[in-house]
Amino acid sequence: MAPAGYELLKSDPEHDGLVQLAVVSRGSGSRRSLFSTQNLSPLRIFLVVPAFLFGTVFGVLAVSFLQPKLVHLDDSHSPSQPHSSQPLQRCPASFPRAAQAPAPVNLFASLTVPETVAIHEWVSSPSRNLNLTAGDKACISDNYIYRIEAYRPAKKDALAYLDHPDETSPPDRYAHVVIHHGTAKDPYVQDYLVGPIPTSEKTTMRKLTEIYHRDPIPFSARGYTTLSEIAPLLLKIMNSVSVATEDLFGGVARGLSNDTIVAAMAAPFSFDGSFRRGWVTWRRNVAGPWLHPLNFFMYVDVSGTDPEQWKLLKLVYNHQVFNSTEVFMAAYHDGTLIRLPKRPDQDPASVDWSTRKLPRPHTPRDLDHLPGPRSVSFGGLRFRVDRALQYVSWMDWGMYLGFDRDMGLSLWDLRFKGERIIYELAPQEAMAQYAGNDPMQATTAWLDRFFGMGSAVRDMLPGYDCPHEAIYLPATTHNFEGSITRERAICIFEHDSGRPITRHTGYSAGEFGSTRGYQLIVRSISTVGNYDYLFDYIFQIDGTIEVRLSASGYLQGGYWEPAQEGYGTAIRDTTMGSLHDHVINYKVDLDVAGLENSLLFTNTATEKITQPWLDDDWGQDVIQQKISRTYIENEDDALLKYPTNFQGGYSLVNKASLNRWGVPRGYAIHAGYSPIHNTVVGSKRLLNNANWARYNLAVSKRKDTEPTSSSQWNLHLPGAPMVDFHNFFDGENITQADLVAWVNVGTHHLPQAEDSPNTRTNLAASSFFLTPLNYFDYDVSMDSINAILLTAPEKAGDPWAFDDYGVGPANCVPDEVPPFEYVGVKTFGLDGQPAPPATAEEMRKSAELFHRIKVEL
Amino acid sequence: MAPAGYELLKSDPEHDGLVQLAVVSRGSGSRRSLFSTQNLSPLRIFLVVPAFLFGTVFGVLAVSFLQPKLVHLDDSHSPSQPHSSQPLQRCPASFPRAAQAPAPVNLFASLTVPETVAIHEWVSSPSRNLNLTAGDKACISDNYIYRIEAYRPAKKDALAYLDHPDETSPPDRYAHVVIHHGTAKDPYVQDYLVGPIPTSEKTTMRKLTEIYHRDPIPFSARGYTTLSEIAPLLLKIMNSVSVATEDLFGGVARGLSNDTIVAAMAAPFSFDGSFRRGWVTWRRNVAGPWLHPLNFFMYVDVSGTDPEQWKLLKLVYNHQVFNSTEVFMAAYHDGTLIRLPKRPDQDPASVDWSTRKLPRPHTPRDLDHLPGPRSVSFGGLRFRVDRALQYVSWMDWGMYLGFDRDMGLSLWDLRFKGERIIYELAPQEAMAQYAGNDPMQATTAWLDRFFGMGSAVRDMLPGYDCPHEAIYLPATTHNFEGSITRERAICIFEHDSGRPITRHTGYSAGEFGSTRGYQLIVRSISTVGNYDYLFDYIFQIDGTIEVRLSASGYLQGGYWEPAQEGYGTAIRDTTMGSLHDHVINYKVDLDVAGLENSLLFTNTATEKITQPWLDDDWGQDVIQQKISRTYIENEDDALLKYPTNFQGGYSLVNKASLNRWGVPRGYAIHAGYSPIHNTVVGSKRLLNNANWARYNLAVSKRKDTEPTSSSQWNLHLPGAPMVDFHNFFDGENITQADLVAWVNVGTHHLPQAEDSPNTRTNLAASSFFLTPLNYFDYDVSMDSINAILLTAPEKAGDPWAFDDYGVGPANCVPDEVPPFEYVGVKTFGLDGQPAPPATAEEMRKSAELFHRIKVEL
Repeated sequence: MAPAGYELLKSDPEHDGLVQLAVVSRGSGSRRSLFSTQNLSPLRIFLVVPAFLFGTVFGVLAVSFLQPKLVHLDDSHSPSQPHSSQPLQRCPASFPRAAQAPAPVNLFASLTVPETVAIHEWVSSPSRNLNLTAGDKACISDNYIYRIEAYRPAKKDALAYLDHPDETSPPDRYAHVVIHHGTAKDPYVQDYLVGPIPTSEKTTMRKLTEIYHRDPIPFSARGYTTLSEIAPLLLKIMNSVSVATEDLFGGVARGLSNDTIVAAMAAPFSFDGSFRRGWVTWRRNVAGPWLHPLNFFMYVDVSGTDPEQWKLLKLVYNHQVFNSTEVFMAAYHDGTLIRLPKRPDQDPASVDWSTRKLPRPHTPRDLDHLPGPRSVSFGGLRFRVDRALQYVSWMDWGMYLGFDRDMGLSLWDLRFKGERIIYELAPQEAMAQYAGNDPMQATTAWLDRFFGMGSAVRDMLPGYDCPHEAIYLPATTHNFEGSITRERAICIFEHDSGRPITRHTGYSAGEFGSTRGYQLIVRSISTVGNYDYLFDYIFQIDGTIEVRLSASGYLQGGYWEPAQEGYGTAIRDTTMGSLHDHVINYKVDLDVAGLENSLLFTNTATEKITQPWLDDDWGQDVIQQKISRTYIENEDDALLKYPTNFQGGYSLVNKASLNRWGVPRGYAIHAGYSPIHNTVVGSKRLLNNANWARYNLAVSKRKDTEPTSSSQWNLHLPGAPMVDFHNFFDGENITQADLVAWVNVGTHHLPQAEDSPNTRTNLAASSFFLTPLNYFDYDVSMDSINAILLTAPEKAGDPWAFDDYGVGPANCVPDEVPPFEYVGVKTFGLDGQPAPPATAEEMRKSAELFHRIKVEL
Repeated sequence: MAPAGYELLKSDPEHDGLVQLAVVSRGSGSRRSLFSTQNLSPLRIFLVVPAFLFGTVFGVLAVSFLQPKLVHLDDSHSPSQPHSSQPLQRCPASFPRAAQAPAPVNLFASLTVPETVAIHEWVSSPSRNLNLTAGDKACISDNYIYRIEAYRPAKKDALAYLDHPDETSPPDRYAHVVIHHGTAKDPYVQDYLVGPIPTSEKTTMRKLTEIYHRDPIPFSARGYTTLSEIAPLLLKIMNSVSVATEDLFGGVARGLSNDTIVAAMAAPFSFDGSFRRGWVTWRRNVAGPWLHPLNFFMYVDVSGTDPEQWKLLKLVYNHQVFNSTEVFMAAYHDGTLIRLPKRPDQDPASVDWSTRKLPRPHTPRDLDHLPGPRSVSFGGLRFRVDRALQYVSWMDWGMYLGFDRDMGLSLWDLRFKGERIIYELAPQEAMAQYAGNDPMQATTAWLDRFFGMGSAVRDMLPGYDCPHEAIYLPATTHNFEGSITRERAICIFEHDSGRPITRHTGYSAGEFGSTRGYQLIVRSISTVGNYDYLFDYIFQIDGTIEVRLSASGYLQGGYWEPAQEGYGTAIRDTTMGSLHDHVINYKVDLDVAGLENSLLFTNTATEKITQPWLDDDWGQDVIQQKISRTYIENEDDALLKYPTNFQGGYSLVNKASLNRWGVPRGYAIHAGYSPIHNTVVGSKRLLNNANWARYNLAVSKRKDTEPTSSSQWNLHLPGAPMVDFHNFFDGENITQADLVAWVNVGTHHLPQAEDSPNTRTNLAASSFFLTPLNYFDYDVSMDSINAILLTAPEKAGDPWAFDDYGVGPANCVPDEVPPFEYVGVKTFGLDGQPAPPATAEEMRKSAELFHRIKVEL
């Protein structure tokens, strides 16, 4: 029960403004700890200085502020007493204590900027014979490095180290390096494995192909690079129709300074990699352009590496198809063009509706001028963080964090009460498939991994995106131009769920009590163009994790007209919210009581049976439920939907490891909010590149060659994807094997007026639970001493005796919340040196890719 | 934006320990308010006194504590600044401001104790000719008043008053009074309507039958009264088998002092009211007896009013059926009885596993000796409460509270932003149907309304069942013995959901920001024997309500043996968790933009269509989703299940009220956690008394004669219930009519080891959302100024400008949390005078009814 010895918080003085904080226990029996105040930050001095200003009157108070103590702890399990006989002291600093990871190396960590630079140099060396151009200067017809990233070790090597870190060296580190081979006769993209790193004479490079289902990566499916790649073509087209656009839309696209309309492209660009063609949509260039579509589209061919060969294939205005700008302009001039009605919302003064500005007129809510409740850990934060190692622990949970360009935050080697539960928990892909009566919405099937949901992670807003007490961790991603570090890429906070995790009112000794339902939330937010994804991992004290995705941000709106009825809802005079499905896939590499697990399907149905003891009053039979438990033995049978009416479900169990009552220990995958799968099956634009989305979940044998259910390039290869999820299911037996559950969340988004300006997270949320299923012998949340136990009085009316285990509410003077500040990203060039974007517009382009293509020369 | 004028908090000095708090605004421009400290409670002095103890050194500090001010508010929308140039002041008192209800009378309030006494006297008057015995002295063969309760007015009368309270008098009040007519030749139970009240010469009494589907209420379905009603029969039986029970179970049931085994009865007792017979199960009389079944059962006949005629029909031990105690004892003596193995967990020292005591050995969690985070409203509470009126408001939500014996807390006249959304939101019934291989589990189909889920509401544990800042409201229920008041029957608190309700990262002016996701939670907890139901109403700033039910407490366990495989899971050597379904029904009387609403079914399916602009690359057709919207026009078609894969859903809309974009304004009923319905259909023990449980939801035309989907007596009348929900669906047109949605939550409970000792609320939770659907023109949560808006800097790297609307985080010295205290209920006799139970055991019996029948003489 005694506080563990506190250690120095490892903070990185280069990266953070955190205070070096030494919390030293005076032996395990000590109840007082001392905060070292060296390096006291200006923020922390804030509170102290004013006290001194009042001079000696406040002397005693000031001293008590400078020597705060932890909340008084009573190790004996007697009811805690309020401690108000002492003056109220300053709260313990709101920085986490140092964590103790099971192994001192995070095998899943990203590359650092210097590591990337070194790999970049090694690969670029003339001795590699790759004829590379620097990515920040290359054209698409050059060879250049598109991305560099850590490649995670084979699981068996990782486990050998993680399970015996004192005896085993960490496995060699590798990077994968993606090169665009633009100079080849048939240009292509190739993924290479480079290592060991750091580079040395032992370092080699080979093609990385075993994780894909085709080789090489088609050039037509390549990632976006030069930001204005497509802009010259669009400018050429738009110049030739500017008379019409000025008239029809009140604007033109003609360069940096005065664009009034702006383009975006739908995806996929290709079916199988044999072409690169896409629909361009045009919108008003105002805040929230996604809600300002013009009903004006172009289909362009951008195949190959020669932009001179790129061309317009079709132009569609108000459902009229033109094969060239000339035909379109002729129709415009000869009056045969059927024009849209003038938009009621074209007044520039009226576009605030698509912003987050306060609605006008603004009706203030009652008492909203007061700040809402704020969570304070009056006894100090209860989670631990090793910032350098990116390791987090809380209430006997522990995990390493990983982060990558494609999908952002991932969690590794998740252990609870000393046992590994999950080796890897990571989002895989985010699908959004639209419907509509126009060329954009009818053909859009996004797979947002293409854009880099890790690259798209944004610094969170303290106090808004996460509570004030949250601790932030940074993340760095690398692309063809350099590296980007976001200081607030990940937030971690303890959250009071607001309800007990268990409770009961009873009268026998030991029956009556309640245990607080605290949670640890680990969060990251990606903004991919219009949409914001909140990735939450919610850890609970009973061993449960809720994996929750919430969405916000802007709709990809369509042009509203009555012919769109059936594909969405008008949310403004000429804007609609378009019907679409989101499905997001997670890899859950569960290791339940060891590597060897089996897939248990539990189902219930009704039975009618006869029992000798049933009475004539009711007849001899009874209709009741019965459980059937079957093991799904073959991968091919493990592409799964939740049973009708959720009568039963799926779990991974270790048949060879029984709990004390003889039941195989397991973890269940339990549906949470919005347990849906994709509606549309058979669409060519999502034919085989997101096959996981057809199910609620699937379970396959884990393989190092099947590390992920998707790839960056799947978006543009629906007919022949780099990773075809169905290929994982090739008849293998999955009994007592190392298994992976691929679990989906999602929403059927039938938009409504209340999606404007931004979608609400409360309804646009989906989740699943990973929860112990006879894994323990009893509910281990009963261990928690943030709980109370009551005993009935002998005499009715007397107060009840209680035991709060000495953990009564603490009180102290909380730190001032630091002033809000938002700085934005740190960017580094290919040489690893800081290379901030020159303008905000540049920063924006890098964030938006082709969700918003500003036409420029 | 200016704080509204604060008013005197109406507190009831008789009932609460709250401080009279006067918060007076000094005109709308004032930023300082003064807290009157008269009647300062001991708790609030707590903080002040110690400061004085330190004498003049703390003089200034003490003064600042005595004259706290509200957080500094900046009406201009400039970013707020920290206010640390002033000494940190004491936080505003954590009591809610007074609420302003739309009408000064709560039409839905419970009767007060004096009102009940007056009605009791009026009904008992000899001039009524009812030959009544006082309930606390009556036998079942007497006539006596079983219950008295407020009867709510007709909706049209209520609305006439609520919509024009200044011009209209509140409708007359009525009570319904249930009388057990035990003296009748064919004893029966009758519900009467008495009023107007207060009683006067205008007061009359008539049978209340129009809300039921049969008349009268069968005596065999009556509510439990005399607590030891059945005990004498059981004692007689048990005395004759005590030699066997001592040997087989290590105990006997023989009276008050030394019972080692204890009985409980399963329900229903009857099919259609023609008999009253039930299965008795026997358990060890230890803490958590529900987990200590003995595999020993009796079927008893307790029909009629003469206990001398009651008898044992069957006795079942270890699946062997005996028609009398004699036959059983004969088998016991002659060795033909097949005995159960000796229970491994019969050691009395080992029964702590079924308590909430800390598991031994106890492994403390890391840092769990610190209290978890605590929510503090540093600017003062933002919700308002009128305690006397039982009215609550928050962020433009407002509602009256009601409370009754059957189902506890209900919410009335819920308005948001000035418009009524819901007239009545109230739980109706809670079903739990079990399965098993023994007479108890196979025949149990609880409808917990019978027990009174309002009577079963328990005082909540501050800081555990609700956060420390929660405000509690009392509730009083009345039964045949008197009245019970629980001071902490309802808790209300503002909760930070921990995630923004909307957010977006963007670069155009007005795109980037985040709005805090605060919620108001109104909670009540009922403990019905073994199970604890947490009723939560979660109000959100966009107009959404999540209605959530979480369960905890003890399983109704069965005796584990391999033959039970299929009906549950072993959770101890000889204890199992038995398979069961919970379904809980809510009445949601939505009035969406008026009374006249229609039921909209929205569904999506795939279509394959051809478009002229589709390109040869992909073919001319596209497979995509499409929405169909149909109005369900007849009640008979409105018994509904969620569509497969949740592709669409149900909403109530007013076709005649369009939002600004021409879409009918509506509220959707959106599935939340665990959207299930009952698995078993056709069971005789639930044949027609819980027909609502067959669906996810149903919509019927609202009628004052269909006030509820169940009744107290439905439990024991599956074949011929007092309220047959299916009768509501009689072919009426439901187009533009006043409609009620009857919505279910529930869980399929397949128990597991982690249900021991208590079920966890995180997984045993189910919910639905009531959420605006084109009700507004945009998302009104954008009104909230607990939000931030950022503007990109001109120069990359500069900090971003921001507007926090002057609502930055406040800081101040929070009040000490009052010491934990739990006193229990206040009880009143039929005369309205305090009548505390004489012993804790008596208090317990009244709470447990026949969930635990202690045998006594």
